[in-house]
This record gives sequence, structure tokens and C-alpha cells, in this order.
Amino acid sequence: MSAGIMQLPTTPRLIAGQFCSDGFELAFDQACGDWLDAQPDLPVIACGMVGSAQGWREAAYRETPASVNELSAALQTVRSVRGVTVHIIPGVLQRSTLPNVMRGEETQVLGVLAGMDAGQSSQQLLIGLPGSHSKWVQVERGRIVHFDTFMTGELYAALCAHTILGRTMQPSEAFDEQAFDRGLSIALSDAGSAGPLSTIFSTRTLGLTGQLAASAQPDYLSGLLIGHELGAIARLHLHNHEQLPAVILIGSDSLCTRYARGLAVCGF
Amino acid sequence: MSAGIMQLPTTPRLIAGQFCSDGFELAFDQACGDWLDAQPDLPVIACGMVGSAQGWREAAYRETPASVNELSAALQTVRSVRGVTVHIIPGVLQRSTLPNVMRGEETQVLGVLAGMDAGQSSQQLLIGLPGSHSKWVQVERGRIVHFDTFMTGELYAALCAHTILGRTMQPSEAFDEQAFDRGLSIALSDAGSAGPLSTIFSTRTLGLTGQLAASAQPDYLSGLLIGHELGAIARLHLHNHEQLPAVILIGSDSLCTRYARGLAVCGF
Repeated sequence: MSAGIMQLPTTPRLIAGQFCSDGFELAFDQACGDWLDAQPDLPVIACGMVGSAQGWREAAYRETPASVNELSAALQTVRSVRGVTVHIIPGVLQRSTLPNVMRGEETQVLGVLAGMDAGQSSQQLLIGLPGSHSKWVQVERGRIVHFDTFMTGELYAALCAHTILGRTMQPSEAFDEQAFDRGLSIALSDAGSAGPLSTIFSTRTLGLTGQLAASAQPDYLSGLLIGHELGAIARLHLHNHEQLPAVILIGSDSLCTRYARGLAVCGF
Repeated sequence: MSAGIMQLPTTPRLIAGQFCSDGFELAFDQACGDWLDAQPDLPVIACGMVGSAQGWREAAYRETPASVNELSAALQTVRSVRGVTVHIIPGVLQRSTLPNVMRGEETQVLGVLAGMDAGQSSQQLLIGLPGSHSKWVQVERGRIVHFDTFMTGELYAALCAHTILGRTMQPSEAFDEQAFDRGLSIALSDAGSAGPLSTIFSTRTLGLTGQLAASAQPDYLSGLLIGHELGAIARLHLHNHEQLPAVILIGSDSLCTRYARGLAVCGF
């Protein structure tokens, strides 16, 4: 269901001999039909927005702290037209002054934990899932105890497509490391202390004053935003702990490369 | 020229007996023609993007510190079709690690200074011009010595129109003071220390957990962003000065009302 619940198929067709127009059934058959034809007894486990209130079957959020055992005890099931039971993993909710929610990331985190030995998983650990809505998940003794969300990816896209900053940018295929690192270091320096609402304007003014080429502006802005995100993550942790935790990144190679450069600058 | 240089008229017409198709001439005639017909000797002074590289006549940026005398000595002139000389005020450029530029705001600032007596204008003063790109202008002895830009207004518009935050919002005619103040206080509290990239997500999660009505979300987000902007302004000043400066706001009543509430919370 990689297309997501916002892009469900709409063309009815036969599934297991029945004429079907349900978008979730159609998407499930499209994604897993061939596998299930070949091996009808494969267990089916789904996570993410498929379990939201607008999903196939709602799997209500479980609250932090959340472990594999707690989440797996709360699986919701739905019987598909083809007679297969789909198990849906609930998302995780953290109640605090600013509540936080995730759906899907909890499963990726538990996957990482499942691959660790007891020694590794007992240490203080931070799992970063960079993306449209980056999640930073604190794990202690195999449980999700706290997490933060940064809308960095979605904000970056909105700034490039729908503000004046995008007007002077020239898209570039290659990753401009130098421009990215410059943005990173600005965000993490004294000049960055005004915060992202202010520093992002320098994408334009460095261009206006001939100090930043149009083709370097996208990666400079990316470095600025990721720098502000990681600077905040470091500050939040040093506020409560004596040292920065070990970090594991989950995500695409290109995005993890950017975040790894930033983490190194922040001293992780 | 309130329509701005991005929306110049395009329909040619007669001006002073000549058939004219120049957008700047058309806009000028539209904006000032009646006044000049009645009083042909009125002096004409223009500021803002009309003096940019894409404007009617470029008035190159003057660098900080900039005073009335320095800017008025650098006026550019253009002779209009109707025989009137238009004087264009240059914008101001501040060279620093993150350069800053303004066009138009310098004229509003100088207008405020012109109305002050010597005693008032000798004190440390901060002039705030909230808007799409908020400017915070430090004035000393009648000169613009430093300024910062925050893209708060443009970012707010992009978040509402082009991110997931807008999807759960319900526009509201009336100003929801309570929601706005809640956003302000969150941004300025410990919970706000993760910065705007993170706190803005609470517009969604407070809605998901039933703590913030859809109609309250726009003003809550507005309070969050303005709170982060003003918190940064306060920090920047306390980094270099012992106390916060006196502030004068220039802008629309509705926007100045929001900023005045935030300034009060910040101790200005």
C-alpha cells in the first residue's frame, strides 16, 4: 500500500471472484495479491495510515511508553474479500503539553530494536526518521518512551514551491555538499540564533548580494532547516541528559546522508 | 502604486496626449494622475520595489548605517511621460554574515523618525514592521543601524495553504484571542524550545486529541509563529544590550494588535 490511503485505486474489478469497488481491497490486492496467490498462508501485517480513523480499520493510538508486546497485543484485524486476515498495527500517541502522534514509524523502530541484542537495546538510544515529518524517537529498554516531530521536509517543500525563496532557486540534480554544509553551519552558529523564521531569508539575500548561486540555494536552504532541526534535538537532550545519545537513522540513503553530516557537526 | 510591480497594468492608453504601453507609466498615471491634474507642481516621491533592479529605475541599495540625509542624497529620478519627475528612494542593505535588505520600510521608518523630537529619537529604539517579511529595525540617533527579517507572514500563508496543517483548519472571521494567546505562550515557554519547525505540528495534534477546535487552529498557529519571532527578537537584543528597547509598530491595525499582545508577553 505504498501509494497511501490518499491515493487508493478507484477502478472496480474482480477479486477472488467478487466484483469489488472498495479502495482498500483494491489497493491490498494490487500490493499483495500475487504473493498471496503464490503463498495463501503468508501472515499479513500492515501499519501506518491504514489504521487511522480514515483508514481501512481504525487501530486506536497506544500511549507511550509503548513496546512490541503492547503494540502487538492491540493489533486490529480486518477480513479481506479474498479471505485473508490483515493485522493492523496501532500508532503511538504521547500525551504532553504538545501531544505527538506517529503511525508507521513505531513499526520501523520496533524492527530496529528486534535486530539488537540485549546489551545494545539497554543503552540510551535515539532513532531518527527524517522525512516530511521527521520523527526523533527515544527508546529505553526496548520501549518507545518519548518522541518529537519536526515538519522539516514538508516545510522545505512549501518554501521552495510557494514562497519567494523558490523564485530565485535553480533546481540542481547533484547534491551540493558545500552549500548544504554552509547552511548547516549557519543554523548552528551565532548567526543562526534568530531561528529558522529569520535565517531562511538569507537564501534570498545571499543570492541578491552575489554570494550564493541560484543552483546552490536549494541545498543551502536544506542545510539551514536540517541544522535548525538537529540543533534543537541536541539542545532538548542536553537539557535532560548529561550527554548526547547514540543515534540510528532510518530513511532513504540521500536523506540519511544529509542528516548524518548534520549530526556529526552537532557532536552526536 | 499599491498594486506593486508584479501587477502592473497592461492595457495601453493615452497619457498626456501620448499613446502609452509602459506598465510603470500606466500605474503611475492611475495612482497619481488625478492629483497631478489638480496640482501639477506636487513633488512625487516613490519607494519600494519601484526602485529595484526590476523596477522603473534602479535605486541601488544604500548600506547601513543609513539616515534621511544619506538616503535623500541618493534619490534616483525618472522623467514620466506627463513631464513630472519621480524621485525614487533607495532601499537599504546591511552587509553581515547573513545580509539583509529592505525597500520601502526604510521610508516608513524615516517617517516615524521625522515626527519625533530630538529627545525621543536619541534613545535606543526598535521599529517593527510586521507583515509577509517582518522587519525589525534598530534606530540610533536618527539612523538605521541594523535590521532583521522574519518571513513569518509568508510562512504562515504557505503553511495554511500548502501543508497538512491547513487541512484540518476551519477559517474564522473573528480574531480568536484565546487561541492566539495559547500559541504565543507555548512558543515562549519551555515547550516552545524545540522551535517552530517542531511546535507547528501541535496545531494538528491538539486538534487530533480534541484540545483545539478546527476554527481555533489558524489563530493558534499565528500565535505560535509570532511568539517564536518575538522570542527571538528579545533574545537577540538581550544578547547585546542590558534591557529591551522601546518599540514602535508600523502596520495594519489587526496585525499590530497581534504583535502588541506578543510584545507585552515578552516584556517589551
